[in-house]
Amino acid sequence: MRLRLLTASVLAALAAVPAAFAGEGMWVPQQLPEIAGPLKQAGLKLKPEQLADLTGDPMGAVVALGGCTASFVSPNGLVVTNHPCAYGAIQLNSTPERNLIRDGFNAATPAEELSAGPNARVYVLEEITDVTAQVRAALDAAADPLARARALEALEKKLVSGCEAEPGYRCRLYSFSGGNTYRLFKNLEIRDVRLAYAPPSSVGKYGGDIDNWMWPRHTGDFAFYRAYVGKDGKPAPYSPDNVPYKPKHWLKIADRPLGEGDFVMVAGYPGSTNRYALAAEFDNTAQWTYPTIARHYKNMIAMVEEAGKKDPEIQVKYASTMAGWNNTSKNYDGQLEGFRRIDAAGQKHAEEAAVLAWLKGQGAEGARALEAHARLVELLEQSKATRERDLVLRSFHGTGAVGAAVQLYRLAIERAKPDAEREPGYQERDIPTIEGAMKQLERRYVPAMDRRLQAYWLNEYVQLPAAQRVAAVDRWLGGNDARAVERAVERLAGTKLGSTEERLKWLSADRAAFEASTDPAIQYAVAVMPTLLELEEQAKVRAGENLAARPVFLKAVADYRKSQGRFVYPDANLSLRITFGNVMGYEPRDGVAYTPFTTLEGVVAKHTGEEPFDAPQALREAVAAKRYGGLEDPRLGSVPVNFLSDLDITGGNSGSPVLDAHGKLVGLAFDGNWESVSSNWVFDPKMTRMIAVDQRYMRWIMQEVYPAPQLLKEMGL
Amino acid sequence: MRLRLLTASVLAALAAVPAAFAGEGMWVPQQLPEIAGPLKQAGLKLKPEQLADLTGDPMGAVVALGGCTASFVSPNGLVVTNHPCAYGAIQLNSTPERNLIRDGFNAATPAEELSAGPNARVYVLEEITDVTAQVRAALDAAADPLARARALEALEKKLVSGCEAEPGYRCRLYSFSGGNTYRLFKNLEIRDVRLAYAPPSSVGKYGGDIDNWMWPRHTGDFAFYRAYVGKDGKPAPYSPDNVPYKPKHWLKIADRPLGEGDFVMVAGYPGSTNRYALAAEFDNTAQWTYPTIARHYKNMIAMVEEAGKKDPEIQVKYASTMAGWNNTSKNYDGQLEGFRRIDAAGQKHAEEAAVLAWLKGQGAEGARALEAHARLVELLEQSKATRERDLVLRSFHGTGAVGAAVQLYRLAIERAKPDAEREPGYQERDIPTIEGAMKQLERRYVPAMDRRLQAYWLNEYVQLPAAQRVAAVDRWLGGNDARAVERAVERLAGTKLGSTEERLKWLSADRAAFEASTDPAIQYAVAVMPTLLELEEQAKVRAGENLAARPVFLKAVADYRKSQGRFVYPDANLSLRITFGNVMGYEPRDGVAYTPFTTLEGVVAKHTGEEPFDAPQALREAVAAKRYGGLEDPRLGSVPVNFLSDLDITGGNSGSPVLDAHGKLVGLAFDGNWESVSSNWVFDPKMTRMIAVDQRYMRWIMQEVYPAPQLLKEMGL
Repeated sequence: MRLRLLTASVLAALAAVPAAFAGEGMWVPQQLPEIAGPLKQAGLKLKPEQLADLTGDPMGAVVALGGCTASFVSPNGLVVTNHPCAYGAIQLNSTPERNLIRDGFNAATPAEELSAGPNARVYVLEEITDVTAQVRAALDAAADPLARARALEALEKKLVSGCEAEPGYRCRLYSFSGGNTYRLFKNLEIRDVRLAYAPPSSVGKYGGDIDNWMWPRHTGDFAFYRAYVGKDGKPAPYSPDNVPYKPKHWLKIADRPLGEGDFVMVAGYPGSTNRYALAAEFDNTAQWTYPTIARHYKNMIAMVEEAGKKDPEIQVKYASTMAGWNNTSKNYDGQLEGFRRIDAAGQKHAEEAAVLAWLKGQGAEGARALEAHARLVELLEQSKATRERDLVLRSFHGTGAVGAAVQLYRLAIERAKPDAEREPGYQERDIPTIEGAMKQLERRYVPAMDRRLQAYWLNEYVQLPAAQRVAAVDRWLGGNDARAVERAVERLAGTKLGSTEERLKWLSADRAAFEASTDPAIQYAVAVMPTLLELEEQAKVRAGENLAARPVFLKAVADYRKSQGRFVYPDANLSLRITFGNVMGYEPRDGVAYTPFTTLEGVVAKHTGEEPFDAPQALREAVAAKRYGGLEDPRLGSVPVNFLSDLDITGGNSGSPVLDAHGKLVGLAFDGNWESVSSNWVFDPKMTRMIAVDQRYMRWIMQEVYPAPQLLKEMGL
Repeated sequence: MRLRLLTASVLAALAAVPAAFAGEGMWVPQQLPEIAGPLKQAGLKLKPEQLADLTGDPMGAVVALGGCTASFVSPNGLVVTNHPCAYGAIQLNSTPERNLIRDGFNAATPAEELSAGPNARVYVLEEITDVTAQVRAALDAAADPLARARALEALEKKLVSGCEAEPGYRCRLYSFSGGNTYRLFKNLEIRDVRLAYAPPSSVGKYGGDIDNWMWPRHTGDFAFYRAYVGKDGKPAPYSPDNVPYKPKHWLKIADRPLGEGDFVMVAGYPGSTNRYALAAEFDNTAQWTYPTIARHYKNMIAMVEEAGKKDPEIQVKYASTMAGWNNTSKNYDGQLEGFRRIDAAGQKHAEEAAVLAWLKGQGAEGARALEAHARLVELLEQSKATRERDLVLRSFHGTGAVGAAVQLYRLAIERAKPDAEREPGYQERDIPTIEGAMKQLERRYVPAMDRRLQAYWLNEYVQLPAAQRVAAVDRWLGGNDARAVERAVERLAGTKLGSTEERLKWLSADRAAFEASTDPAIQYAVAVMPTLLELEEQAKVRAGENLAARPVFLKAVADYRKSQGRFVYPDANLSLRITFGNVMGYEPRDGVAYTPFTTLEGVVAKHTGEEPFDAPQALREAVAAKRYGGLEDPRLGSVPVNFLSDLDITGGNSGSPVLDAHGKLVGLAFDGNWESVSSNWVFDPKMTRMIAVDQRYMRWIMQEVYPAPQLLKEMGL
């Protein structure tokens, strides 16, 4: 190991770039020509126009997996993504005799590749259509806010089903910038996805939860799929007769060693950011939502841990739920810590005050935007008035047997309507998802624990201020204290919805059957449903108001920023985005600098022999023998493992290809650092870093540790 | 905060210097002209001859406090040292009404300065005399090993008392390089020492035990004393009539800002290192001594913690003992971790094998050295044969009431002899120390806990292999199992030595009184003493053998190193040493670089409001307002707080002045980093760093936080 340096030249170069270009920005592809200057300044050697061509090279190689991003890396449909993005497929094909999670998987030939399961997908984007005019016309024609919300729902269903009329496609409508632009994305939906290669989890998950969000990082976070289609080249469900899909474009592995300061960019599908939220919305989140939810999750974690000590079944069945609560509350704590560190509240309020002041000088258009802002603040106040109740009911209705009852009854109500008129989430296309959830509950439900969680939320309910309580629930409870809660939980214990068979039976029952049922959970659902529908309609009215006001104000924010010489990008919304910047470390605290690359020696230094720091013996031996396989970087004296850059990503970007200045693959994005979690609300250019696995480490693993020469050859190496 | 860099130039420059000069080396002042080349290469601008003059400028300004190092910084006897080095004085002068520890202390005029107590000392080195020939003659004249050990003791007493015959002086004989050189150090002993200034502990102890050994560090670790003498200029006990001592030399505060890569050196009194230990001695320590002692300390910590939960008196009275156990076991764990990190065993064995191989080609002299080596290995084997017993007895005899009984009885035995013939440690000059220990026990002793510790060690005793047990102890125990231990502890419970009055009474009792006593602890001491004296004599025989063999082998090691073009320095031995190198950070692990300076902003970033991270409000306000007072470094954008360099220090160096290339004061050494603790055995140039407080932070505190303009003026600022 040698000391590796943050070179002064890189920092000086970046200091000269306006703040908005120190990595911040999830750019829509159409914008790239517009920001050609900053792209060139950061080091891009390709023409921005080339990147804007989504069906060209290299962007045509980037695909979505649903929740993750991936990319084609061979003309034969080979796809590379993160290890967790293929985890379901690895798990599905594992047996006690053949533990692919632990041992890894390597198909020597395509014939040995394993189906990733009926729900695995590769989405290849083929077309983006701007439908703003159509949406706007539908919204303008609506008589009132409720009609507006419904008009959008109806148009969305129509556009999507029209687009999906061509077999083999999946389509989605995206709203950008609070509704200033609407775009319809049309994706080829490849349904035969197979696992080609996954390293052992001691490489792919090295560091596990302990290293999650952390730097320095040493994870070999990659796996390979292959996309298959029917012999006619069209998407088809799994069949042994299917053939590898031939993508029009695939990424080439970088032929120049990546180093500190180098240009990098990422194309992917980031899920959601809130950078354009109102200051008051930020305050509500930072002061109430995050601390409150984190507190409830910690309470429930403590309850499950305590119960789990006595009952191993609870420990096992709630492990995944607990992991989610843990992850979320840790994330919220991290965001709150970040908000304090960068004074996010101060920044939000200062920026909004500047916008409002500027608008006052912008005549009638400014006045309209100010009015929209005031309306949005009012809508927030309305929702704040019942935020405690909404959280308690949403949580109670998301829990175990009661949750199943509410969802099943709602499905029965919706199913009575023609498909196109149903509430989104309850259409025919959604039924497999609901069925999956009903089956999955079996692995995540223990009656005794479910009762304790019911009691937890009902006790929260009875403590709500009177104005937030709901008559239907009050009546059902028959009281307003812990004793009433106890009796209610006792009653609910009689439900049969703990049985999967029972839940699946109710999946096809009609409304009348529910209303005649004596099952206590279903009786609760029936009792509370009219109120739920009423609250939903109230929320829809507010959504309709939002549809009118938010685009007006967000356009004003964009205009203000442009007036300041700043480029503007919309919040993440799961649609394809591009982010660019440079390889660089950061200073997490006084006296400490994180260097941008980790190395093989760091993997071994973390090895304890205990999961998640159980590096394979082959890896340790290769490192001890300095068998770098020609992949070492002379600047590091070793093979790079993971690297940092100042790119702007969020959940959904996992597996995104990282491209160099020439558009070649240098790595895969797989995490953000701990200090970046707050950047979903206010971007912190000093501390926000993306963590990627270096392609040289991937290749080294496939050469020296868990060899896959056939895939290296297929990628042209 | 900005990103601060490890510049490539510094690292490149150091890479070109032979390993022995990457900071390693505790040089005796006489050696400096010899290593003029490396000193110049590292950046020293003064002539090495100037540094070798111990009574000249700047070395004449460096003083010892006994356990700490300090330096004069004004012509009026102002002395600067570390905060813990003055902690006793601060504590002594604190009252519930006037908490100097918490609030700090600042004497507006010398008249307000507070006595540091009757035992506080400032030692000003006046003369070093080489007495090797005399010592060697005495050793050579001895008939056998025991006589040799006694001859050295006798000569040491004679040389010291001869030297101390001049009033006001304290002298000490030091053995260098295993006895290849002996030097007598003559120090002026200033006995009126007063506290002039100490920052609040929220500055001086900022970070406390949590940050101990850690980087990044943010401690304002400094305090000021003033040395006083009688009106005749001679040392005198405290008197209001005394006057400030006028040192011949005092350090000037640096007038050039210190930066990364700059030359720095330290003069001070490092206590002890073991870099020339045999490989087998290293193995014994790494494989047995450290792990065994750490295990016992952890066992005892657990016992005291458990007992402390029920009895707050135990908690309070054993807090300091526990802190010692904790500190030592943490240090040993750190050393063992370091040994593994750098493969210290491999290095030791390889180096020793090379020496032995080289000696085989060195004729008769080589053969003599090889023989000495073999003898030293034999002596180690002898002591290893009883190491378990020796540890158990030493520990049992160091515990509470039994420990007092053994020490008091031994004193009575020795006091029967003429002073010059007594065992060192039991001479007239040592009695105040023994008396102090007898008084101090009061604050560190609870009978119930003492009994548990007795039982712990006696249970260890009965588990010793039969060959290691001692007849006198066996007889006293009257059995060899847990029941015998229980009975023995029950008997010991009758001791009155738990009372301070009783202990002080026995301090002047004669041998016969002990032998007639019915106190069970004293009876134990009387029963076991003949054996102890016998074991002591055996140890003295081994020491006498060592006195003959070790210098021969260590000279051979030095000759070998010189033959390799390496410079050789002796192990630390509490005598004045100089170490030099450069300001530099390090890479503690893959992906992380520690930058060499911390800043004011880092102090505030660590502030939690809870001790030890309770930065004063004045400090936080000044930082928030960026009131840097002209002390900021443009390279850092702030005022430096602490800094790292690759200097070679150890315990005893605390408070050492750090000098720049021009011999001016740039800071005070106060700690080593965690990774350096193993360097006491095998120096690790990559990871060993000294931590110092920057003089600019000291001045900033004295300007902006806890002002002392009079002292700044006195230092010429």
